[in-house]
Amino acid sequence: MKLALVGYGHVARALLPLLRRTRARHPFRIAGIHTLRHGTAYCTGLPEAPEFGPAASSIEEFLDRAGADVAVELTPLNPVTGEPAVAHIRAAFARGMHVVTANKGPVAHAYAALRDQARECNLHFRFESTVMDGTPVFNLVRHNLPAVAVRGFTGVLNSTSNIVVETMEQGGTLEDGVERARALGITEADASYDLEGWDSAAKAAALANVLMDARVTPQQVGVRGIGRLTSERVRELARKGKTVRLVSRARCGKDGVHLRVRAEVLDRADVLASVPGASNLLLLHTDLMGTLGVLSISPGVEQTAYGVFSDLMDIAGQALR
Amino acid sequence: MKLALVGYGHVARALLPLLRRTRARHPFRIAGIHTLRHGTAYCTGLPEAPEFGPAASSIEEFLDRAGADVAVELTPLNPVTGEPAVAHIRAAFARGMHVVTANKGPVAHAYAALRDQARECNLHFRFESTVMDGTPVFNLVRHNLPAVAVRGFTGVLNSTSNIVVETMEQGGTLEDGVERARALGITEADASYDLEGWDSAAKAAALANVLMDARVTPQQVGVRGIGRLTSERVRELARKGKTVRLVSRARCGKDGVHLRVRAEVLDRADVLASVPGASNLLLLHTDLMGTLGVLSISPGVEQTAYGVFSDLMDIAGQALR
Repeated sequence: MKLALVGYGHVARALLPLLRRTRARHPFRIAGIHTLRHGTAYCTGLPEAPEFGPAASSIEEFLDRAGADVAVELTPLNPVTGEPAVAHIRAAFARGMHVVTANKGPVAHAYAALRDQARECNLHFRFESTVMDGTPVFNLVRHNLPAVAVRGFTGVLNSTSNIVVETMEQGGTLEDGVERARALGITEADASYDLEGWDSAAKAAALANVLMDARVTPQQVGVRGIGRLTSERVRELARKGKTVRLVSRARCGKDGVHLRVRAEVLDRADVLASVPGASNLLLLHTDLMGTLGVLSISPGVEQTAYGVFSDLMDIAGQALR
Repeated sequence: MKLALVGYGHVARALLPLLRRTRARHPFRIAGIHTLRHGTAYCTGLPEAPEFGPAASSIEEFLDRAGADVAVELTPLNPVTGEPAVAHIRAAFARGMHVVTANKGPVAHAYAALRDQARECNLHFRFESTVMDGTPVFNLVRHNLPAVAVRGFTGVLNSTSNIVVETMEQGGTLEDGVERARALGITEADASYDLEGWDSAAKAAALANVLMDARVTPQQVGVRGIGRLTSERVRELARKGKTVRLVSRARCGKDGVHLRVRAEVLDRADVLASVPGASNLLLLHTDLMGTLGVLSISPGVEQTAYGVFSDLMDIAGQALR
């Protein structure tokens, strides 16, 4: 099964070793890699070091020449619009390619339209790594919860905020926390995107769009982040056995799905506060299965790459049937 | 798809309304229900109140007359041997029937042999509800973690113990806790089976047999339960911010899989201590996906029945391909 990679950052660089490691049993091959920064590479196997030439003049030209079965969209997130990833995905569907993405922009901004386009073209659109770094969330509901309706969810989905609060509890400042998160490789250039809750809002929108057919964008999520939190306040709370987490909540109302992201004060022993460090937790509130949840303990880019791999395996499995 | 139910306790009684609720989209029908206590019923649809006649003289006679596609094994657990459920399952396979069970005995005592028999007969053997009451565990690994090896696990899998510790923290005795767990319907006649760790050992053996090919029985699990825990000790620990959980642990050693169940003293904020009341949590330690986990918040018999339903849906989906 031939893959066209769009983007060649951390996730793509972690995906290639994983594909090599499993190549005997799962024959994925790279047909091409397209980037703005390095140019474009056309390949035939699983290159250790792709040789980039001049960049293709457009995503369409790249996809046409690569002629892959699956386009793997791994460009950086544009949090305001989801572009250019949305256009990349549309171009892939138009060429009869399945799409796997680790970029939450398209799912947060344009899920219903992309899902419908995929259906019309009889193609797969998968995005397991967009929330919780590859831990099964979307595929859990898809494969393991048949006939279940998700009525709402509660999630602690932003690792940077967790690290910042933990750092402040240990005596550091907010800035120290951001530095620590950056050193762990989990924070982008603009940390305010994490701290002010926009990363959590994008993930909440993605979850609500896919699991609850909410048709929202991140801009419609009510957000109040941890940006104004002080070390003094965090330590005062800690003395009372409390802590702070950036919590994403969704519930069904009469007029649709309500989403909010808030810095919430929680009991230290609350299940939402229990995941350590960079870990994440998501509780799904359902009709037939009550409340169940998934958690990931300090996931990294390897897990994100694995999520992409698991989507590829799923598509390969269905294509073979 | 026709089902033969063996056993008619709480889970079977919760499964029937679920099958009725989803009958328009998922046409499962009951062909017969066999019990030692009520006798045997042969049916053609989804009866509100099955009419039991004299018991079939043997499981073989029942299965032959029911002529179902799937045998659903829901008899009570025999913790020492896994019988008669193992014999029921073998009889079903011998008649070309898939098997779904919510009884952990067969998976804890005879998994490898039953799996092999199912494979030889080209039949499905499913058991999602045997651990964590229907929350996806086995099907999570099966469907969502392709190519992943489970290297070990850590679980808080016994609800009765959690309730007993919680009751003692709130000032009650161990006996008060057992009463409360019994009132919630989560404790069997013999509470020592839960408190001494045998329920956790059976679940650990089931998990290890399926996910790690361990080929162990519950008797091979080193067990030290909470039976000797006193209210004084629990409250003394609570004053220090600690609590107790009955923890099941598995790890790969050079000489195979090591399993143990212990009453462990944990920090109150430990993720293993964070699930409230009757809730359960399982962390899987893997090669490609690091540590990830699932949790269920206060599951009941409806969740157990849903786990059986999800197995049935899976078998129906695969049979249709």
